[in-house]
Amino acid sequence: MAKTYRVTFEPEGKTMFVLDGTTVIEAAGRAEIILNLPCGGKGTCGKCKVEIPVGCPSHTEKELEHLTEDEVHRHTHLACQTHIHGDMTVAIPSETRFFEQKILVEGAGRKVAPEPSVRKTFVKVKEPSLKDQSADMDRVLASIRDIAPDVRVDIDAIRTVPDRLRGGKFAITAVLDEDELLSIEEGDTTAHNYGVAFDIGTTTVVGMLVDMTSGQVVATASRTNPQVVYGDDVISRISYAMENKNGLAELQEQVVAAINEMIAEACREVHVDRRYVYEVFVVGNTTMHHLLLGIHPKNIAQAPYVAAVRKSVEVKAADLGIHINESGRLHAMPNIAGFVGGDTVGVILAAGMMHSSELKLAIDIGTNGELALGTKERMICCSTAAGPAFEGARIKFGMRAADGAIEKVVIHDDVEVNVIGRARPRGLCGTALIDAVAELLRLGIIDPTGKVLPPEEANGNVPDAVRERIVPGGMGHDFVLVHGGETPSGQPILLTQRDVREVQLAKGAIFAGIQILKQELGVKDEDITEVLLAGAFGNFIRRNMAKRIGLLPDIPTDRIKFIGNAAGAGSRMALVAKGCRREAERISAETEYIELGGRPDFQNEFMMAMMYPERLNHA
Amino acid sequence: MAKTYRVTFEPEGKTMFVLDGTTVIEAAGRAEIILNLPCGGKGTCGKCKVEIPVGCPSHTEKELEHLTEDEVHRHTHLACQTHIHGDMTVAIPSETRFFEQKILVEGAGRKVAPEPSVRKTFVKVKEPSLKDQSADMDRVLASIRDIAPDVRVDIDAIRTVPDRLRGGKFAITAVLDEDELLSIEEGDTTAHNYGVAFDIGTTTVVGMLVDMTSGQVVATASRTNPQVVYGDDVISRISYAMENKNGLAELQEQVVAAINEMIAEACREVHVDRRYVYEVFVVGNTTMHHLLLGIHPKNIAQAPYVAAVRKSVEVKAADLGIHINESGRLHAMPNIAGFVGGDTVGVILAAGMMHSSELKLAIDIGTNGELALGTKERMICCSTAAGPAFEGARIKFGMRAADGAIEKVVIHDDVEVNVIGRARPRGLCGTALIDAVAELLRLGIIDPTGKVLPPEEANGNVPDAVRERIVPGGMGHDFVLVHGGETPSGQPILLTQRDVREVQLAKGAIFAGIQILKQELGVKDEDITEVLLAGAFGNFIRRNMAKRIGLLPDIPTDRIKFIGNAAGAGSRMALVAKGCRREAERISAETEYIELGGRPDFQNEFMMAMMYPERLNHA
Repeated sequence: MAKTYRVTFEPEGKTMFVLDGTTVIEAAGRAEIILNLPCGGKGTCGKCKVEIPVGCPSHTEKELEHLTEDEVHRHTHLACQTHIHGDMTVAIPSETRFFEQKILVEGAGRKVAPEPSVRKTFVKVKEPSLKDQSADMDRVLASIRDIAPDVRVDIDAIRTVPDRLRGGKFAITAVLDEDELLSIEEGDTTAHNYGVAFDIGTTTVVGMLVDMTSGQVVATASRTNPQVVYGDDVISRISYAMENKNGLAELQEQVVAAINEMIAEACREVHVDRRYVYEVFVVGNTTMHHLLLGIHPKNIAQAPYVAAVRKSVEVKAADLGIHINESGRLHAMPNIAGFVGGDTVGVILAAGMMHSSELKLAIDIGTNGELALGTKERMICCSTAAGPAFEGARIKFGMRAADGAIEKVVIHDDVEVNVIGRARPRGLCGTALIDAVAELLRLGIIDPTGKVLPPEEANGNVPDAVRERIVPGGMGHDFVLVHGGETPSGQPILLTQRDVREVQLAKGAIFAGIQILKQELGVKDEDITEVLLAGAFGNFIRRNMAKRIGLLPDIPTDRIKFIGNAAGAGSRMALVAKGCRREAERISAETEYIELGGRPDFQNEFMMAMMYPERLNHA
Repeated sequence: MAKTYRVTFEPEGKTMFVLDGTTVIEAAGRAEIILNLPCGGKGTCGKCKVEIPVGCPSHTEKELEHLTEDEVHRHTHLACQTHIHGDMTVAIPSETRFFEQKILVEGAGRKVAPEPSVRKTFVKVKEPSLKDQSADMDRVLASIRDIAPDVRVDIDAIRTVPDRLRGGKFAITAVLDEDELLSIEEGDTTAHNYGVAFDIGTTTVVGMLVDMTSGQVVATASRTNPQVVYGDDVISRISYAMENKNGLAELQEQVVAAINEMIAEACREVHVDRRYVYEVFVVGNTTMHHLLLGIHPKNIAQAPYVAAVRKSVEVKAADLGIHINESGRLHAMPNIAGFVGGDTVGVILAAGMMHSSELKLAIDIGTNGELALGTKERMICCSTAAGPAFEGARIKFGMRAADGAIEKVVIHDDVEVNVIGRARPRGLCGTALIDAVAELLRLGIIDPTGKVLPPEEANGNVPDAVRERIVPGGMGHDFVLVHGGETPSGQPILLTQRDVREVQLAKGAIFAGIQILKQELGVKDEDITEVLLAGAFGNFIRRNMAKRIGLLPDIPTDRIKFIGNAAGAGSRMALVAKGCRREAERISAETEYIELGGRPDFQNEFMMAMMYPERLNHA
């Protein structure tokens, strides 16, 4: 096994074991600590500063350009420029974190000031007497007439107004959401105005509790989408809803329960009373969106793959069983199509693609790969059925990125692997799958057609230790990543010929999707200013490896950027700024959806894209 | 006992026994069949036509002015001009009925055309294909863009749109409520558009199923408000809600259950599917309003008697547990004050008082007497605590107008009474109470201070049989209405001295309220063009008797009109015409509420009004 080092991240106290030479930013990502990285890891923006109190290496020239003398003394480094060659402790300041960063209320390059929909105002209300018997709500409305001359009133605000007025001795805070009076609160509560932005993924649900006045995230929570017990992908969820009488209601209850737990957890963490949470904003793919709102997604699963609703939806949170303020609202990001949902709208919004004259390509790889390409002039998108290969399914030793998963493969004299959680290796996750195929392509062990060559046909430069790992298998030859003696089961971990074919299908679908989008816009690789990798998987991909296997276009690596949980960032932006909601509506309405299914030109591109590239121009 | 005759009303088959000389319209009212009577019973409008196939009397000159030759042959009579001097069968055509009459969509003298808030439109929607994958709701919205360019969409419409579109083979009916798309229905359902108008009284709930296209009532239902088990009057309901943990919820559930039963019953009667009912409109006093909507009414019961909300409230009917179309709405008539609710707004609306330059006084007598006086220039109102005397409470032999209740008292040579339901008399209801006091005042048995005189002090003209009925009692003298031998219990039915005092208090409060309203507007009795008696009790009062005891002002009897269930009529008008909703909002906002409690001038008027009038100018 290759040399690994222990890295501890503070203040979380999370410890990772990483291969020699891994960058700090990559290690942090593996520890699920996402850092701000506007320049894409080139070391030019100086935004990814961390402190390394234990095991601090020397500073590079590039780092010193961005550090003050004081910072150098405090062992500050740029996480993207620091390679790990020994055990270390890394402290990550909050300003470097993606979740607590301004990028979440900023699109790429543009500021978005907090402009919450919900506003609060403290007023003293005239007390009733026999000479002034007007109704409680009338006197509240009179007291806010200057700032809200004509408001509708929520029924729960009416139900609670008598006690709140008297409880507050007629000094109350009115909570307004646009032209609606949501709630009356006793005394001055104007300092307490919260919302929660959710990214509801098929696998993971992420929630961010936001102080609506500052626009800052004050707590986060995440957990596995409890619907996974009904199946890994959206199709299996839809099938469950179709085949079981109360299937839709069950799936809805599951995700609502998770949302409630996460809101409670985040509120508890920072001592926020849940009744001061007035808005929930959710993004998700169209199926997750429909399931949460109790809309049957069955027509998404069958041609012509039609969603029930595209536009944004607003409902009373309590009507879905979500526990926030009794009058609080839930807003759902608008969708684009049955297989391009509000999560993609969130990515386009967060990346500011609809504000840019520069051509950008956003890629969100999961079971499906959602792609968006365009400028503010025209934006198009598509969804490709990438299959679950990168999530570990259909791969002989495939597994999710959990303890015991190989997450990185490097081949020099022999194979070196890094395993998550300092466990002995049990399988490999998506990034290692890409690494392994890329390295074997580089070494000439896999040929451009995807065939694993027998030992005698492999390139003459291949070291013997590596060549000996090529063994006969069911479909030809397989490659031994880890020998049997190093695994808990005693069985070797293989990359099989069949696995290589699965990767071909998956990367071929995504690459062909990119080709179709480019053709549709009449652009070439060199016209693409930035490739934006969104989502959890995208942020762990090693860009050169992804290009090597032909998953990503062959454009300079520094133009390929990680934008983290951009769907979640879009959710948060839309939560805190009304302008972003309007922009999201525009993205949803104006982004053209390109259906790849049944297109002859897509089939052709797909056949070609399944080949592995012979070599790259921009390695 | 005096002579009574049997009258059978068709098509109901209801049979009543009435005193000789009773008018057909009065008998019909006692049978709870309310007839149209725009002229107030003067025989000038000719609207109360009925047919008398059995026992038809000869026609009067006045009747013949309004009847065609054919009608005379069909035994048609005017119900207000026909006195009963023998058994008869009366057939009441639907156009004569109050509930099925245009007066319910007309104010007094003005036409209100149906202008429903909910409208339906049948459209053919473009079917989806791989070339047109827009969401279901997008394609519906595109198909109605011409008539509804910018609509919000109800969440339940989104939930049901996929199945409804496909179930209707993309030919559907869109149901719009103002700027909201409520529902999508399979095929062409434009012929089915219903609403239900409710009058939720403290004692009785009345519901009218209305065809919203024609504005006509197609079925009615009524029942006792099930909340009566928690107490007869609003104060006892409020107390129950205050003293029991789930009191408010219990009271709400009771009335919601009654509403659901009545909707089901009315729909069943005319084979209307409940999902085609899109709107419920309710009027009620402020306490009934609050209880239905789940708003605690406790502050109404204590000074300064403040309601939680005055303006109209709209909620999703399903949120209250009311079963109509899944997206249907409930609208509540706006209130005026804690003790003048949406029912009074309904009366003012139905009577067109806010459209008239003529000064009108509306009186709705129940436990409280609600009074409204004014013209389109200025409208004022008040509520007087009349006490439940007219409903039978606190009266020694008082009872509601049920079987065995004396409902009419006439004194000639001796006392003649009419009893409801051909039973032997058990007690007396409000109208008989008024009759008895009025007759004893006329005969000089009760003096203007309200004292029942001993036999030797009564006027010399009193027949002996009557004089002998004056007997010593607990507070002085009582009057025997029915001798013990004629009652089931064997005990005589008395009008006691205490009863006479209760009537003094009740009529005094109402009369004093009228005085204060007149003073407030600076008007006199002779300026009042019409006195409008609303509600069930008001419609059974004999006007001369009510004037005789000083309950009503001493103005010519033909200016005192019965306007039936005007609150219910107002509910129906607001249900079918948006213009009426706007007018109701204006009535609620502009009608000034005069608080009588604690006003020295009211106390003074009240003391004076407790005296009985010595004689009338307009007997």
